[in-house]
Amino acid sequence: MPSFVQVLDFIGTFAFAISGIRLASAKRFDWFGAYVVGFVTAIGGGTIRDLLLDVTPGWMTDPIYLICTGMALLWVILFSKSLIHLHNTFFIFDSIGLALFTVVGLGKSLSLGYPIWVAIIMGSITGAAGGVFRDVFINEIPLIFRKEIYAMACVVGGAAYWICYALHAEPYLAQIICGVTVFVTRILAVKYKICLPILKGE
Amino acid sequence: MPSFVQVLDFIGTFAFAISGIRLASAKRFDWFGAYVVGFVTAIGGGTIRDLLLDVTPGWMTDPIYLICTGMALLWVILFSKSLIHLHNTFFIFDSIGLALFTVVGLGKSLSLGYPIWVAIIMGSITGAAGGVFRDVFINEIPLIFRKEIYAMACVVGGAAYWICYALHAEPYLAQIICGVTVFVTRILAVKYKICLPILKGE
Amino acid sequence: MPSFVQVLDFIGTFAFAISGIRLASAKRFDWFGAYVVGFVTAIGGGTIRDLLLDVTPGWMTDPIYLICTGMALLWVILFSKSLIHLHNTFFIFDSIGLALFTVVGLGKSLSLGYPIWVAIIMGSITGAAGGVFRDVFINEIPLIFRKEIYAMACVVGGAAYWICYALHAEPYLAQIICGVTVFVTRILAVKYKICLPILKGE
Repeated sequence: MPSFVQVLDFIGTFAFAISGIRLASAKRFDWFGAYVVGFVTAIGGGTIRDLLLDVTPGWMTDPIYLICTGMALLWVILFSKSLIHLHNTFFIFDSIGLALFTVVGLGKSLSLGYPIWVAIIMGSITGAAGGVFRDVFINEIPLIFRKEIYAMACVVGGAAYWICYALHAEPYLAQIICGVTVFVTRILAVKYKICLPILKGE
Repeated sequence: MPSFVQVLDFIGTFAFAISGIRLASAKRFDWFGAYVVGFVTAIGGGTIRDLLLDVTPGWMTDPIYLICTGMALLWVILFSKSLIHLHNTFFIFDSIGLALFTVVGLGKSLSLGYPIWVAIIMGSITGAAGGVFRDVFINEIPLIFRKEIYAMACVVGGAAYWICYALHAEPYLAQIICGVTVFVTRILAVKYKICLPILKGE
Repeated sequence: MPSFVQVLDFIGTFAFAISGIRLASAKRFDWFGAYVVGFVTAIGGGTIRDLLLDVTPGWMTDPIYLICTGMALLWVILFSKSLIHLHNTFFIFDSIGLALFTVVGLGKSLSLGYPIWVAIIMGSITGAAGGVFRDVFINEIPLIFRKEIYAMACVVGGAAYWICYALHAEPYLAQIICGVTVFVTRILAVKYKICLPILKGE
């Protein structure tokens, strides 16, 4: 039986892969290209984190991420017309993935002995860097730099973890609060169209 | 005396570097920029593989790759007008490089104790990731995601290796069959214009 | 009291971050995006170097780089109108950063036992790769491949180090000569508009 966290991890990976595959399809990538973009969107953030932390990337130890991306590709091929109606479902899934990936990245860094400020950055990289790869591959300016609160939600969740940590809360409680904060920040930001200020150009 | 594999490695590196330098010249890069793009096209895939496998990148242990890229740049500067007539020669060289890099990446991963499915991915990264760097540097959507069978040939060759492996073939035989499969897949795909289906956009 | 090298490092980081933030502002990035682009411009080169050398990236051991980037962002937000008049100041700061980063990268590689030709490449990566990240993130062809002597100044400085090294000069003297060479090469190249030849396209 997979654990609750494994189920969330699968949902998050699936949602991230779908987001990569859909954007690749809009650029008329072939099946292979779409698969690669979906896979890198899902595992890119964790891979950068693991390279920086000098540990073996998680996807190299378990083929589940490859299989999950394959299922996401099959889903897009079979149900491409109905995907537009599932927009809200995917948004929820994507936010679950963002929250979980942030918590996983943060926890992994702390368990390796890194200070909390490094862990917060690693959590944000885990959640948001995959989308940067995706946008570089489809030759667009990364969305997270311009629109909506996305990676910023990871940072807010990391700050919530830091507060719990400073108050000597149990790690599992701090992780739940962190994940819920990321999720709620992301949902509220989109619902109420909360944006960061744009930097004025010269 | 260089071994047969070293000669093939030099030919593959030269062909990959030429491909990077020619595309850089089409974007009016200066000599230095063209050299860097050629070098990264040649060694980028192996470097990503070695970072993921946590070993020192091969090009940092032997200056031959720098020298080979320098010769490729000199070649393009001196013979730029005649390069167009050598199109088929470079296509053969590039396919040799693709096949050899795949075999090298696959073998290196297996010798480090990684499972066969990781080794197949590493072989494909070794063969194809350099071209992704090249296309990101010249600000184009990576060719391998959209056109022709390229990285897919590495995966097919990797599958051939897997079958030999499952049948308990000798490693050297499995490597030859893998390399030939990559080479033949690539040649046939271009000759008969075999493509993967395009993913339909929304 | 910070040492002289730490002061130069801070100036270089600040100048590199400013360069990333200004280009991000021209593309209408939000504050978060501009911060990330500034940070990666400042630490990207050193991070690639440290991943290749298999050591922990410097910015993960000291929050000064994060703070310095925050100060650069604040500066751009507050004084965006007057930045244009400081063009020459930033050019000098940027050249100081380029020179220092080259020396630091070169010295770190040598102290880890790598040969001099690897160290020269690492010095150049430390100085110039951050700008490549910056330009990929804002979806432009990397400037250093097309315009002016930039990364080439790092290579020239590295060659100066190599000569000192071959003449058995003291390491600190070789480092000063290397840094001054990078700085002077960069300044002279811009002042006299010295460029490398453009590679002719087909």
